[in-house]
Amino acid sequence: MDKVNIKRLAEELKLSTSTISRALQDSYQIGAETKQRVLELAKKLNYQPNAHASSLGSRRSKTIAVVIPEVFDSYFALAINGIEAVAQARGYHVLIYLTHERLQLEQEILHAFQSGRVDGVVMSVSAETTSTAHIQALRAQGVPVVFFDRAADDIDTARVTTNDAESTYQGTCHLLERQCTTLVLLSISRHLSISRQRIEGYRRALAEHGISQRDDVIDCGQDPEANCELVKNTLEARPGIDGIISTVEMLTESAYQACAALHLRIPHDVKVVSFYNARSAAILNPSLTTISQPAFEMGKTAATLLLKALRNPKSTLVAENVVLPSVLTIRNSTTFVG
Amino acid sequence: MDKVNIKRLAEELKLSTSTISRALQDSYQIGAETKQRVLELAKKLNYQPNAHASSLGSRRSKTIAVVIPEVFDSYFALAINGIEAVAQARGYHVLIYLTHERLQLEQEILHAFQSGRVDGVVMSVSAETTSTAHIQALRAQGVPVVFFDRAADDIDTARVTTNDAESTYQGTCHLLERQCTTLVLLSISRHLSISRQRIEGYRRALAEHGISQRDDVIDCGQDPEANCELVKNTLEARPGIDGIISTVEMLTESAYQACAALHLRIPHDVKVVSFYNARSAAILNPSLTTISQPAFEMGKTAATLLLKALRNPKSTLVAENVVLPSVLTIRNSTTFVG
Repeated sequence: MDKVNIKRLAEELKLSTSTISRALQDSYQIGAETKQRVLELAKKLNYQPNAHASSLGSRRSKTIAVVIPEVFDSYFALAINGIEAVAQARGYHVLIYLTHERLQLEQEILHAFQSGRVDGVVMSVSAETTSTAHIQALRAQGVPVVFFDRAADDIDTARVTTNDAESTYQGTCHLLERQCTTLVLLSISRHLSISRQRIEGYRRALAEHGISQRDDVIDCGQDPEANCELVKNTLEARPGIDGIISTVEMLTESAYQACAALHLRIPHDVKVVSFYNARSAAILNPSLTTISQPAFEMGKTAATLLLKALRNPKSTLVAENVVLPSVLTIRNSTTFVG
Repeated sequence: MDKVNIKRLAEELKLSTSTISRALQDSYQIGAETKQRVLELAKKLNYQPNAHASSLGSRRSKTIAVVIPEVFDSYFALAINGIEAVAQARGYHVLIYLTHERLQLEQEILHAFQSGRVDGVVMSVSAETTSTAHIQALRAQGVPVVFFDRAADDIDTARVTTNDAESTYQGTCHLLERQCTTLVLLSISRHLSISRQRIEGYRRALAEHGISQRDDVIDCGQDPEANCELVKNTLEARPGIDGIISTVEMLTESAYQACAALHLRIPHDVKVVSFYNARSAAILNPSLTTISQPAFEMGKTAATLLLKALRNPKSTLVAENVVLPSVLTIRNSTTFVG
């Protein structure tokens, strides 16, 4: 049997080789019906493109990269599933890269993309990402970038975020309505736009309730034990604290464990709200009042925007911001105790 | 300034272009000191290899793939971190692929690797993987595969597992020592060797305690709500059940929620042990007795074995099985209540 190449597919379907080639690349120049016919025959004959040759020819790898800080947070695990659901339906490979919250690693990863490894990037920047030259350099090479969750403010491209300020405002108001008088907010890197927005929503809620506080934003790091110690020291130093709002899923454990170590009961002595996407929220002791981002939907939307841009090279990604709202779910960690 | 290519690096260092090329590929034929000199200059001059050209020339992409069912389970999130720690230290890119527990997707992913995208694969098979022709085909092309956690029994290569049978045996004995008389085991796909081994360890503990049970292995799926319903129906149908051993992290929530729905108190009425790697174990209601796999170490070990094979193409991966033991941590979900 002859080798199955583009020429063979063209002969069988009585189409030109360039039409076959474009159809296999999902080009916007080829109609849906033709694409369907080409893909079916390619599958039937077990057509196997040469990755290097096809990349060299078309500059298209049919691959997108997801660049994220980590996968240990349920938010990112769910968002990946959303991205993959869209990409796989369109025949794209998805490569996942982790920066481990390090700018240098993020720079190296994006630098490697310049040699044509991927067609486009969906990314959430690291906690250290203060400079964005590496992102700009990649875009200058014609590789589109869509942000989700954590965006770089100074780059004009599409981004998919949640209503960070508004949902933190709601969570803070909820604590204040449940009679909390002295709050702290657990944060990570203030370089991140989402951290700043969450703090802003928190401040706005306090201001509207006539509360003026100082030194009430606790900057946590990546090490869970150190974070627990930090929260514990804060609660010890300021015994009046009766409400904690945690802006990161992993900080919930630190808050719970710090309270336990100091024999502070949740919700009796201290009430807790956290950004949290894991299913375990309902079975924590006590069950956790959560702000849940629409992680899966955010991933889906970001991938959809990127693939739309890739299908039609004439279109450019406009600097739009799609905001999908988070949901506050009230559970026992903030239940009023008379 | 001249373009920085291999020739330029060779001239500056007074080495042959083939030595430069091999050093950049981390070849075993080049000494550590020479590699160091080459890499330092390449970095200093911002040498940027052409991905396609260098792949075509050397058949090496300096990339390994991690193929896993999902990232939502903490085990895989931790294992990825172990794999990346080793790979990054050796200058390898790591691409993460998710099969979402589907054999077809796993086949497509491995099929795509045949065109030279990656040098080697670290993988944990999907719950549906009953046929392994796709893995054998990839190995036949000279791409080495190392298994971790979930291995395919019929493929002779290196694998890194935990002591699945033994640790489940220990967890089961723990429940029996805590006065449980009627147990169920929550499992996923019995195609998986790790599922079968965990069931075997469970059966052995029961037999040694003179307990004979039937229909006590509950086969769960991927949908958390359906799993919860399944556990609930089982507990309702057989009111004597006073011990649950869950072999998958995500089934813990189903077990806890099923007990709550039936007003069964943990540990008073039902005691629970689960394979679990998330830090939330300590703050669950009640805190969870866990069997924790050494996920990070397993990832590190699997990557180390693969990279060793890649460095020296003359070496082959022997069918060795590295077994790293899991740890039983006793918490309130199995604490004896008099």
